[in-house]
Amino acid sequence: MSQLVPPSVSARGLTIFLHEQIPLTRAMELRAAEASSERLVLEAPLAPNRNHLGTAFGGSLQALPTLACYGALWMTLREAGLDGHVVVKRSHATFHEPVSGKLRAVCERPSAAESAAFLSQLKRHGKARMELEATVEGTAPDKPAVKFSGSFVAVI
Amino acid sequence: MSQLVPPSVSARGLTIFLHEQIPLTRAMELRAAEASSERLVLEAPLAPNRNHLGTAFGGSLQALPTLACYGALWMTLREAGLDGHVVVKRSHATFHEPVSGKLRAVCERPSAAESAAFLSQLKRHGKARMELEATVEGTAPDKPAVKFSGSFVAVI
Repeated sequence: MSQLVPPSVSARGLTIFLHEQIPLTRAMELRAAEASSERLVLEAPLAPNRNHLGTAFGGSLQALPTLACYGALWMTLREAGLDGHVVVKRSHATFHEPVSGKLRAVCERPSAAESAAFLSQLKRHGKARMELEATVEGTAPDKPAVKFSGSFVAVI
Repeated sequence: MSQLVPPSVSARGLTIFLHEQIPLTRAMELRAAEASSERLVLEAPLAPNRNHLGTAFGGSLQALPTLACYGALWMTLREAGLDGHVVVKRSHATFHEPVSGKLRAVCERPSAAESAAFLSQLKRHGKARMELEATVEGTAPDKPAVKFSGSFVAVI
């Protein structure tokens, strides 16, 4: 476990970590709005993430859910007292409607059973994979603007 | 056809367009290195696109090939004298190795026959879709670090 990172990850701590470690998240003005046992929610204002049409840039619409999934898995590691790193291996996104306001990506965290299986494999093999999903919210609550899924690998 | 945009698109013109219209491309320090009838090549230095491991951020590794495909299709429109817009509808990326230097995304432009079919549909229906592929170059010439494919829709 890193001496610098507490095992419990706060939204503010995650925002600071991302801004320090991934400079583009500063340019995106990204912030973690919720980092709980249920979900990780990342937000970014439209202005720095706009495209030529005045709606959200497709690059930002992929980066934000990628980071939500990445962050959710990173929290699982930290909470288990592990100091590993996480990388994305595969990503898939479908874009259903333009985003014309704040970008808001939500990753529902894996269940306790999924996390336990993942951590068990990680401790045994030093490496484990998890499939994660995230959405970027749309105008209607049940109709995401973007559906994202990705395969992430953690290494300790 | 826009009065502001010449039908032939230069690498420099495309870079200026992207920087003006999509602010995050400035933060990425993105530039078009080649915009020819064969391919569109977009580059970005590592520093503003790095992640917590000192390699390229997964968000940048998706944004760059997305823009290469987007730009390639936009060039096809401009060369045909059409002033439409292009949006991404689906994206898929696989990440094969980390990128530890300059990011360089290459989209081979569609064949003349594919472009003709696309433009014909676009003129007839005001809307047309094209599947495009791009790679982010890896350490070996024939082994891309990232393979990207996407579905793009143009509307006039």
